[in-house]
Amino acid sequence: MSLLVVGSVAFDAVETPHGKVDRMIGGAATYFSVAASFFTHVNLVGVVGEDFTASEEAIFKGRRIDIAGLERAQGKSFFWAGRYGIDPNDRVTLATELNVFATFRPKLPDKFRKPSHVFLANIDPTLQHSVLEQLSSRPKVVALDTMNYWIEGTPAELRKILKRTDVLMVNDAEARMLSNEHNLLRAARHIFSLGPRTLIIKRGEHGALMVDSKGVFSVPALLLEEVHDPTGAGDSFGGGFMGYLASASSLTDAVLRRAMVYGSVMGSFAVERFGLERLRHLTRREINARARHFAKMTQFKL
Amino acid sequence: MSLLVVGSVAFDAVETPHGKVDRMIGGAATYFSVAASFFTHVNLVGVVGEDFTASEEAIFKGRRIDIAGLERAQGKSFFWAGRYGIDPNDRVTLATELNVFATFRPKLPDKFRKPSHVFLANIDPTLQHSVLEQLSSRPKVVALDTMNYWIEGTPAELRKILKRTDVLMVNDAEARMLSNEHNLLRAARHIFSLGPRTLIIKRGEHGALMVDSKGVFSVPALLLEEVHDPTGAGDSFGGGFMGYLASASSLTDAVLRRAMVYGSVMGSFAVERFGLERLRHLTRREINARARHFAKMTQFKL
Repeated sequence: MSLLVVGSVAFDAVETPHGKVDRMIGGAATYFSVAASFFTHVNLVGVVGEDFTASEEAIFKGRRIDIAGLERAQGKSFFWAGRYGIDPNDRVTLATELNVFATFRPKLPDKFRKPSHVFLANIDPTLQHSVLEQLSSRPKVVALDTMNYWIEGTPAELRKILKRTDVLMVNDAEARMLSNEHNLLRAARHIFSLGPRTLIIKRGEHGALMVDSKGVFSVPALLLEEVHDPTGAGDSFGGGFMGYLASASSLTDAVLRRAMVYGSVMGSFAVERFGLERLRHLTRREINARARHFAKMTQFKL
Repeated sequence: MSLLVVGSVAFDAVETPHGKVDRMIGGAATYFSVAASFFTHVNLVGVVGEDFTASEEAIFKGRRIDIAGLERAQGKSFFWAGRYGIDPNDRVTLATELNVFATFRPKLPDKFRKPSHVFLANIDPTLQHSVLEQLSSRPKVVALDTMNYWIEGTPAELRKILKRTDVLMVNDAEARMLSNEHNLLRAARHIFSLGPRTLIIKRGEHGALMVDSKGVFSVPALLLEEVHDPTGAGDSFGGGFMGYLASASSLTDAVLRRAMVYGSVMGSFAVERFGLERLRHLTRREINARARHFAKMTQFKL
């Protein structure tokens, strides 16, 4: 089993009611791969600029993350700046500087071309497609994230990649926009007709839903005393989900449910500190304890 | 064990994307008592006007609901009119005519004065307090609903009744307003300092949370193809919760969790049809099946 992720590695500037950080490592592929590496080996494909130094690269060291696919390009790394309100859903994007990401064309090292599991983070659907074109065998699971920008801007390209997608991970609003259905069950049915057989809806403080032919599975979010920085929660969820899936020997309903729980666990840790600080110091023991906490929070006997 | 509910019995006019009904029986105490009567005997205290006829009263017949406390007053019954958008949270109140409710003073028949469980639906805290004053013994569980109008308008009276409340049932916004804390864990802790030992947060399409000294328990909402009419969902939840609690022989964590599930079950049925139509034709067999469905939707093994 091997897990491939393609997406952004970036610098973030984040302001929340709990503080402000002007520059720290971020990016979807970073959160994803660090979260997933607690469960399995991860091969990362992305691009950074000349401003990306050994001190940033340290986040990947000593983990099961192969950054042979992390291209170094001339120029500056992708930069994102945002501010969150007391309600973590109130997010204002202050700056998006694509920099080296503007001309990024994913190039998979030969040793990355036979993944069992693939996570295509939220990037241009054309690039997501080019990743699958470089694979030498069909993966067991292709999971995809996308956003309103691509749903509205490049619908044809998105439909093309959705045909080759097994698991779509989006939020409520994106699922509704993509399907043109407000009702989430009907949105799911529409999305299944586009390709995916599993829809995961990330709902922030309201947890996550998985909808597939077997029905609906729901995991709440953990109530935390303080959400320090919501950045990366969704990608950490993705990392926990796909990392666990890639570590499991089968793809049963029980395994998918457990993957949802580990996704929620990783998302809940990610928001406890700024940027990657909490994941950086996390232990497998803490992950297991929190998974049991999720069980305690949801289990009942009739 | 006996369950007392005090609250509104009313006429509602409701418009949703699925239709429009100009006049039908509604009211918090109506939804609550019909939902609770599937689990236990209910004693209802409220007031109606001269426009309330045998055809409306029929909803209570053939159920374990004693309406000896349903006062008939001169004038018209409480009337509420509202319109919901595609998002059930988008509710516009078109009319609120208190009518006989304006001068309502709850009067408990003697046989109602020793309830084991009490539900004080969302009415003036002074009236809620007067109900407890009429009891001849301390109930095992007093549950209370309230809203922004009372939180802002009559804070002193609300604090007085909260001191005698075991279970507070409100929505996110009300919990935040009452505690002046955005974070729900800290809101819960503040609310515990006011009296209640259990906080239930009703979140509509996002389900419900129970917070107490044992921690947090979460139940999702059922994803439905169509929410015909959200009116009464919260009070049906309350009825399922308190009805199950009153039917149980103990007040353990396992019992409270099951009560949360039955509350969610009753709320999910209530919204499937306009007004009380779905609850009117509901069977205990359907309730049990849906409770198992909630289990399927949430259970996992690590």
